[in-house]
Amino acid sequence: MKYPNSNKTYVRPKESASNRGMSLEEDINCTNRYYLTNDIAVIHKKPTPITIVHVDYPKRSAARITEAYFKLASTTDYNGIYLGKYIDFEAKECESKTSFPFSSIHKHQIDHLSSVIKHGAIAFIIIRMVEYDKDFLIKAIDFIDFYNSGTRKSLPFAWIEENGFEIKRSYQKPCDYIAVVERVFGL
Amino acid sequence: MKYPNSNKTYVRPKESASNRGMSLEEDINCTNRYYLTNDIAVIHKKPTPITIVHVDYPKRSAARITEAYFKLASTTDYNGIYLGKYIDFEAKECESKTSFPFSSIHKHQIDHLSSVIKHGAIAFIIIRMVEYDKDFLIKAIDFIDFYNSGTRKSLPFAWIEENGFEIKRSYQKPCDYIAVVERVFGL
Repeated sequence: MKYPNSNKTYVRPKESASNRGMSLEEDINCTNRYYLTNDIAVIHKKPTPITIVHVDYPKRSAARITEAYFKLASTTDYNGIYLGKYIDFEAKECESKTSFPFSSIHKHQIDHLSSVIKHGAIAFIIIRMVEYDKDFLIKAIDFIDFYNSGTRKSLPFAWIEENGFEIKRSYQKPCDYIAVVERVFGL
Repeated sequence: MKYPNSNKTYVRPKESASNRGMSLEEDINCTNRYYLTNDIAVIHKKPTPITIVHVDYPKRSAARITEAYFKLASTTDYNGIYLGKYIDFEAKECESKTSFPFSSIHKHQIDHLSSVIKHGAIAFIIIRMVEYDKDFLIKAIDFIDFYNSGTRKSLPFAWIEENGFEIKRSYQKPCDYIAVVERVFGL
């Protein structure tokens, strides 16, 4: 966003981000706890995959992992059940104002989304456009179609606004994606 | 099993176990790969949950976790999708010949199974009776009913044989639980 007759780019006041202060992951986890407690859905984040190389077993205290490495995820980060349906999604924050780079999502994760779609899953991606302070749900099938068209290396923000669905937030549900899922996937 | 007129307990020859040599987890992972490759189902083991305390970021090499601890799982180890249905299960090896101790499964995991059942999941437990070299699928609902009856601290083997469903194995599907799921849950 540019001011008229100016070359200055609008700089979003920092407060809005720091007031929120929560990452997309924290917001989704908090929302998932709300869904679980209120019997709306059971959706969990998967633990970070790591390769454990060495563990110490000290006497009288907990086993301690002393050497381990992060591993590439072979699936998405979140899955679970809503109204009997299998739900699967990946969530990403995007710092760019103009587009979401495909390099943010691993090929493995795209393949995983394609597989679960084939089996009837409700599959999507949640993108937080940090600079606009907005969260969007994008159907995985739409994302993959665009990705496979091979014409670009990122998802333009204009495309996200047009094809994505904005996710509302509230105090209890800081990323209320189930409300969007219900509407968009016709459940 | 006891020899007649003897106090000696029958000792199963070790070969049968060592010939197999694979853990239940390895067998399920192998079977899941078969299901995935052959478009039968998409089911993955969740990574082991850990709490990371310290990570080193050496220059020019991978981040190295130097202090971390195992965390109690809040869900089961396996979930995914089969015929559009959400599948959720826990798998355990049982060394005892007589019963499967409830202490092998955390209360959290029982609660998780109850939650997903409420939302329409296909939920179960796979128990490998190591001494009999047999795997059984037990519907989570049956397991939880027995567990909640509160009369025992373990699942007797006779109960498992009567209420569980034996899982067949083959070279490609060393724990072919989907064949049982299809039959038992009427999919």
